[in-house]
Amino acid sequence: MTAGWRLHELAQMVGGRVEGDPDRCVRGIATLDVAGPDDLSFLTNVRYRPAAEASRAGAILVGPGVVVEGRDLVVAAEPYLALAELLDRMHPEKPPPAGVSPDARIEASATVGREASVGPFAVVGAGARIGDRVVIGAGAVIGEGSVLGDDTVLKPRVVVYPDTVVGARCLIHAGVVLGGDGFGFATSASTHRKVPQLGRVVVEDDVEIGANTTIDRGTLGETRIGRGTKIDNLVMVAHGAVIGPHGLLAAQTGVSGSTRIGSHVTMAGQSGAAGHLKIGDRVVVAAKSAVFSDVPDRSFVAGIPAVDHRAWKRSLALVKMLPEFRSRLRSLEERLASLEAKAKGEA
Amino acid sequence: MTAGWRLHELAQMVGGRVEGDPDRCVRGIATLDVAGPDDLSFLTNVRYRPAAEASRAGAILVGPGVVVEGRDLVVAAEPYLALAELLDRMHPEKPPPAGVSPDARIEASATVGREASVGPFAVVGAGARIGDRVVIGAGAVIGEGSVLGDDTVLKPRVVVYPDTVVGARCLIHAGVVLGGDGFGFATSASTHRKVPQLGRVVVEDDVEIGANTTIDRGTLGETRIGRGTKIDNLVMVAHGAVIGPHGLLAAQTGVSGSTRIGSHVTMAGQSGAAGHLKIGDRVVVAAKSAVFSDVPDRSFVAGIPAVDHRAWKRSLALVKMLPEFRSRLRSLEERLASLEAKAKGEA
Amino acid sequence: MTAGWRLHELAQMVGGRVEGDPDRCVRGIATLDVAGPDDLSFLTNVRYRPAAEASRAGAILVGPGVVVEGRDLVVAAEPYLALAELLDRMHPEKPPPAGVSPDARIEASATVGREASVGPFAVVGAGARIGDRVVIGAGAVIGEGSVLGDDTVLKPRVVVYPDTVVGARCLIHAGVVLGGDGFGFATSASTHRKVPQLGRVVVEDDVEIGANTTIDRGTLGETRIGRGTKIDNLVMVAHGAVIGPHGLLAAQTGVSGSTRIGSHVTMAGQSGAAGHLKIGDRVVVAAKSAVFSDVPDRSFVAGIPAVDHRAWKRSLALVKMLPEFRSRLRSLEERLASLEAKAKGEA
Repeated sequence: MTAGWRLHELAQMVGGRVEGDPDRCVRGIATLDVAGPDDLSFLTNVRYRPAAEASRAGAILVGPGVVVEGRDLVVAAEPYLALAELLDRMHPEKPPPAGVSPDARIEASATVGREASVGPFAVVGAGARIGDRVVIGAGAVIGEGSVLGDDTVLKPRVVVYPDTVVGARCLIHAGVVLGGDGFGFATSASTHRKVPQLGRVVVEDDVEIGANTTIDRGTLGETRIGRGTKIDNLVMVAHGAVIGPHGLLAAQTGVSGSTRIGSHVTMAGQSGAAGHLKIGDRVVVAAKSAVFSDVPDRSFVAGIPAVDHRAWKRSLALVKMLPEFRSRLRSLEERLASLEAKAKGEA
Repeated sequence: MTAGWRLHELAQMVGGRVEGDPDRCVRGIATLDVAGPDDLSFLTNVRYRPAAEASRAGAILVGPGVVVEGRDLVVAAEPYLALAELLDRMHPEKPPPAGVSPDARIEASATVGREASVGPFAVVGAGARIGDRVVIGAGAVIGEGSVLGDDTVLKPRVVVYPDTVVGARCLIHAGVVLGGDGFGFATSASTHRKVPQLGRVVVEDDVEIGANTTIDRGTLGETRIGRGTKIDNLVMVAHGAVIGPHGLLAAQTGVSGSTRIGSHVTMAGQSGAAGHLKIGDRVVVAAKSAVFSDVPDRSFVAGIPAVDHRAWKRSLALVKMLPEFRSRLRSLEERLASLEAKAKGEA
Repeated sequence: MTAGWRLHELAQMVGGRVEGDPDRCVRGIATLDVAGPDDLSFLTNVRYRPAAEASRAGAILVGPGVVVEGRDLVVAAEPYLALAELLDRMHPEKPPPAGVSPDARIEASATVGREASVGPFAVVGAGARIGDRVVIGAGAVIGEGSVLGDDTVLKPRVVVYPDTVVGARCLIHAGVVLGGDGFGFATSASTHRKVPQLGRVVVEDDVEIGANTTIDRGTLGETRIGRGTKIDNLVMVAHGAVIGPHGLLAAQTGVSGSTRIGSHVTMAGQSGAAGHLKIGDRVVVAAKSAVFSDVPDRSFVAGIPAVDHRAWKRSLALVKMLPEFRSRLRSLEERLASLEAKAKGEA
């Protein structure tokens, strides 16, 4: 049982300040709807303002300039970032105990780093190199010659095909498949012959990959995920694609073969990009959109095919006006006909 | 070898009646195209009427008012429901034998209910509670502290992250991942810091979840699937989403974080909903649509963004009329120009 | 260490010819950007012409009529097909050693063919028949009564539900689930009753299926994947669907229940088809499109709902012209009003 934290301690952890009682003590963090007087809650999205006012939370973490009447507040310049920091401090994760399960099968030529943890029924192939403090979950399969960097965590049932490289401090969720064959076939006389997929997948440092996502190996070269990029569940990254550093690929997104995506790119949920494209730095692709052509840096695109998002919005608005257009056309036709009739009568 | 069933017995099972010979005997149920004289077939979709007429089936299960010339019919008020009932009766599933495989690894502090079946290479973590008659397939991984209710079936290779709660009589298909981390990052100075995902997933009673679907845990609170809801394959339910009871989420659907969906909602295939929305009771979202704003009860929405489906159909029809609009515009311009020329000449 | 291949040898393997030095020796195949003087590279997509000119490759594989100044060329009638052939010859895959892992669990009544390889923690159910030279990866689960044809390869963690039939020379990637229950429920009084899914999945010869794809069993009949069809990652094929021979289903595609797709059909990425449809032979469905009605042979369709792709392009172009239409409407209204005023003044 933890003794709790005083608000001034928490504010100090996140470089913030307290508005209200700096000595109020909280024991945990909870969402606005379930927090009680012993909890710190948080208001990081204005939508939830009424929930903040109704909450029984003892104190609330907010951004600058946010006031919630009658509450003790911890004010942080970046409240969502502060929340991440406080959750780490107040609810630290406990790693699984180090050691290799007697039920894991590790080829003799593989190397396993210090304090690594390998779960039951995991399989590590010949020549694989597993870094220090790596965690390999139950039933995960690491192909021969693959490399997992220090402090990387693989959840249960991840499959890493041979010769894949994963950097340090990555988090790979259950069911992810790294390094499956790219979808490459040479079609001749109406049948499809497999083009051998001999490349590999490289995942740089500090990448997170969500459950059941698949990243295919390059045909000959690499499929690469840049450092710090975060990928959600059920995402597909095809052979030879390159995702730059610090990207965000939301759930069910697809990136086709050989497409190169710059740094700090966001692809929202269920969006996609066709193959062999160049998508620049700091591009945002709206949810459910499909990119069919190159996209310059710092664009925000939407639609199928994706265009500048303002053009997309304008098109939507104009399509909504079509019933009005139709009646204006009709009215013009009637008025013109009557004018024509009159002109004819006069002639 | 079963002796077969007489049509009057089958009709009684489903509260229906026979039109034709009540003593006709059938030995199984088969689709219209493969059924023979010893089979009962069924006609539950009008599309297949010609197939019914061409079928060699000995008897056909139909709804009220449906006539197929020269056939013995079992007539039920709800024929598709009757089909489900008859399939259960005539082809009962045989559960795997109870018992824990010697190749399963169950932590000492976990509890396993009576007559449960745990397959080879399954792993059950510390403190997990497995109900009576639960079936855990080969290679499934149940995280520590998780709970599986009575009569729930997990097919092979399901992964249940720690502290997940699954109710009674659920059916979870192969490759499903319950409780993976939500996709939550605090972005500061262009890098993404993980927001710890400390909540859980709660799946209520009588839920079915299709192969390779993923349901993420809440950041602090719950992601919840209401009782009786059925989820298809490759569906994504994000952190903090709440799906009400008796919903249907078809394949490849995605529900973003914190969205709350009411009861009896249908989301058709490849549809999606953005985050932090409220979707009311008995809403239907058409296939391939994307919901970007709140939806009131009993709406039927379609499109990207989703709007009332009649408005969506109207827009489609009007867009199809655009070539006509263009020629009407041209004609108006010509006629008007000629009238203007005439007016000028007269002036 | 291989001694390498002379260009005339390679040309002979693919029925091509050399332009330049037929005795030049190469040791491997590499992409244009990383190939060195000892490598053969390839130019099979005109987009990469500048990369070919800048490449350090010793020789380049090209199609007829393609000239790259100052390079030795291997010219083949179908260069992508030739690439597949040369990759197979120059980088042959080495199959895993034959034999059943002592950590696999194979039911006594199952049969395993000659020279088959079964990985650790794989499970083969009662009565299953595994063909000659089949490879079953680590942790794969083969349900009872299933059949795997000769030379078929299952990567790690594939799940094959009972009674599934897979032909010869298939390649099934990690995480695939074959034969899960179809999504069939009879809804009555607002609750959903499961319709037992008693059919099966049949995968014909020479099919490849990508990582984490799911193919559901038929309700009573079959879900069938035709011979030579290639399916990418995260694809969903629903119960009772029939995919004809030699098709290509790109990533994240979905085919709904009972839809019948002809031969040589291509469905591009993230496309979908509704249920109970008939899609003809040699149809192409564009990326991100949704087929909601039957499609005749040899159509190329696009959009949501999918229409002939030329009609789709025309609609897009006309929607882009809507701002112009609006100003033409305004101008017509003003000019007409002025003419009407004049007419009134004259009257």
